[in-house]
Amino acid sequence: MTEGKPIECVAAIAWEAEKPLDVTTVIVAPPKAGEVRIKIVATALCHTDSYTLDGHDPEGLFPCILGHEAAGIVESVGEGVTSVKPGDHVIPCYQAYCSKCPMCKSNKTNLCGAVRKWTGKGVMKADDDVRFTHKESGKKIYHFMGTSTFSEYTVVHEESVAKIDEKAPLEVVCLLGCGVTTGIGAVLNTAKVEKGSTAAVFGLGTIGLAVVDALREAGARRIIGVDTDEGKFPRAKEWGATDLINPKNYEKPIQDVIVEMTDDDGVGGVDYSFECIGNVQVMRAALECCHKGWGQSIVIGVAASGKEISTRPFQLVTGRVWRGTAFGGYKSRVDVPKLVDGYMEGKFRVAEYITHKLKLTEINQAFDLLHAGKALRVVMSTDG
Amino acid sequence: MTEGKPIECVAAIAWEAEKPLDVTTVIVAPPKAGEVRIKIVATALCHTDSYTLDGHDPEGLFPCILGHEAAGIVESVGEGVTSVKPGDHVIPCYQAYCSKCPMCKSNKTNLCGAVRKWTGKGVMKADDDVRFTHKESGKKIYHFMGTSTFSEYTVVHEESVAKIDEKAPLEVVCLLGCGVTTGIGAVLNTAKVEKGSTAAVFGLGTIGLAVVDALREAGARRIIGVDTDEGKFPRAKEWGATDLINPKNYEKPIQDVIVEMTDDDGVGGVDYSFECIGNVQVMRAALECCHKGWGQSIVIGVAASGKEISTRPFQLVTGRVWRGTAFGGYKSRVDVPKLVDGYMEGKFRVAEYITHKLKLTEINQAFDLLHAGKALRVVMSTDG
Repeated sequence: MTEGKPIECVAAIAWEAEKPLDVTTVIVAPPKAGEVRIKIVATALCHTDSYTLDGHDPEGLFPCILGHEAAGIVESVGEGVTSVKPGDHVIPCYQAYCSKCPMCKSNKTNLCGAVRKWTGKGVMKADDDVRFTHKESGKKIYHFMGTSTFSEYTVVHEESVAKIDEKAPLEVVCLLGCGVTTGIGAVLNTAKVEKGSTAAVFGLGTIGLAVVDALREAGARRIIGVDTDEGKFPRAKEWGATDLINPKNYEKPIQDVIVEMTDDDGVGGVDYSFECIGNVQVMRAALECCHKGWGQSIVIGVAASGKEISTRPFQLVTGRVWRGTAFGGYKSRVDVPKLVDGYMEGKFRVAEYITHKLKLTEINQAFDLLHAGKALRVVMSTDG
Repeated sequence: MTEGKPIECVAAIAWEAEKPLDVTTVIVAPPKAGEVRIKIVATALCHTDSYTLDGHDPEGLFPCILGHEAAGIVESVGEGVTSVKPGDHVIPCYQAYCSKCPMCKSNKTNLCGAVRKWTGKGVMKADDDVRFTHKESGKKIYHFMGTSTFSEYTVVHEESVAKIDEKAPLEVVCLLGCGVTTGIGAVLNTAKVEKGSTAAVFGLGTIGLAVVDALREAGARRIIGVDTDEGKFPRAKEWGATDLINPKNYEKPIQDVIVEMTDDDGVGGVDYSFECIGNVQVMRAALECCHKGWGQSIVIGVAASGKEISTRPFQLVTGRVWRGTAFGGYKSRVDVPKLVDGYMEGKFRVAEYITHKLKLTEINQAFDLLHAGKALRVVMSTDG
């Protein structure tokens, strides 16, 4: 029994930006009131981890344990925790859901703010302190996004734990902790795409593909995939893209190309567009390729710090709508279990995004694969 | 009987940008197929007329007859016109409604494109030509916005004519041809403001006041008026504003001021904001004063040519929505008659925006009043 005791385990510490992770031993304190300690079974690598490690996140705190797309099993719970118990299969969610705050009570947003103040500072709410200590140096290690899944064990707030069907394969559904969920939700929750719609998807990585998959599921009649890497086209076609275009092959702006190729009504433009890259110029193109009168563009990608989006206001006055999404608009603890069920019922792809499987101890290889553009999702197991 | 014959009448010609209008005699040709000749009874002056006369509209064509906010009586109709007949009371609408195009068939937009191609070039669809000739010089004079109401008589496309209740006072309901309708529609159609909402209104001229009036009608619980001219505050208060602030009185950005003054839930920000000025910096402030998770900002003002709006994409990713409105989202021929009925039933203010009454022949005085910021709406009659 480890309950109530510190656990020594393997974790990958990011000591500072732009340095490889240090796979080492950490001591994970027992969960305090309102907290849950989870044994991570599988964790994937997402671009946001890389974004922070590369020093692009001005709020990034070091040393920390990165990781936010994972699945595991509850090891123990702190005082007052009632929604999960030891042995439950769970997905830690960087977007919390407390059910009580104004955001949770609103049906317009999923941006619960109950623990954001603490997760943004890399600490836990109960005592403004961390639960990770580096064994060798005794140094305290910050949490990341309220999840810190690059560790065999982690401690999270109860508000951040979604209990899922224990029949679901953890090494697959871990992907529902971020990217795949975000892409699906952008289509189904944020844009609410109707059957017969047209859409453009900028960036065909995991999120872009999840958008394509959800568009297909929603019955979009035309799905235009846009990427400068044509190596991504075959997979996007398999996922459901009807047209695939490379902006490098055109002299005119890609928004003009898309307006022309969709001009079957004398106006042109797509009903919905999705930016899945994090490039502010692409965000502008995504807005401007939308149909006059009703086209909506959804920003999903996270732009580099300090970057701004721009357009002529005429684009909005003539009916285009610019919005964004975080975690696909899903209320995490409520909706992630449903997404797991949806995957089990075969509604959308999840396992198909896994291009590489590694051990957590091989995490620096995972970053190399991501940086080389060779991976969709690298899933790492903690066993061994 | 004037039917079928050219009509000589008084009109105000804009020969070139930045020059006073020339009140002179024009010859108005009879309406061709699909056209309607209207005797203008009352026309108001709107900022868009001034914007074009001041040379800010890159598409502005001279010489032309400006004016787009008016009401009158059908004098005669061209071949095939069935929706109105001589004697009908009407409001010419710069935003057409044909009922047949993809835009008209969509319930998401009012931006009918049926005659836009011609009205944008200052001519009529039937023959790509104008119906106005300057009597003295014989020169052809362009139409403006498909309406050209600064003339005793004008010719418009049937798609641009809304038939209204003949009991309605034309010298009042002419205002429903643009500004007041735009403000009301921005609240009721574009934003769909719910009872109990909070809102900020930037710019307290006619459109801003119409927004305030519609917010009050929609049951908004807090209406924050923002203007640098505090002389506008008493009227805005009378219209329904609950708070009035002058950005000049604060050192911090006005969006931060508004977020703080609405922070009764630990987040702050208004549910809806409306930009009624046409200033891209104010458009940014309007977006950024919106509540995280659901705040929507509506751009109503027309910015100067070439100006762009900007913000950090984080503003959208965290749930704010940026959109715009033209003619308040109203489908002109369908909805303007209903707005006239609504005015007759006392649902919202219209007559109250009229601060000055002049003759059409005194139109240069009207421009002076508008430029001096002394007028809300100057209504000019054509009788005499």
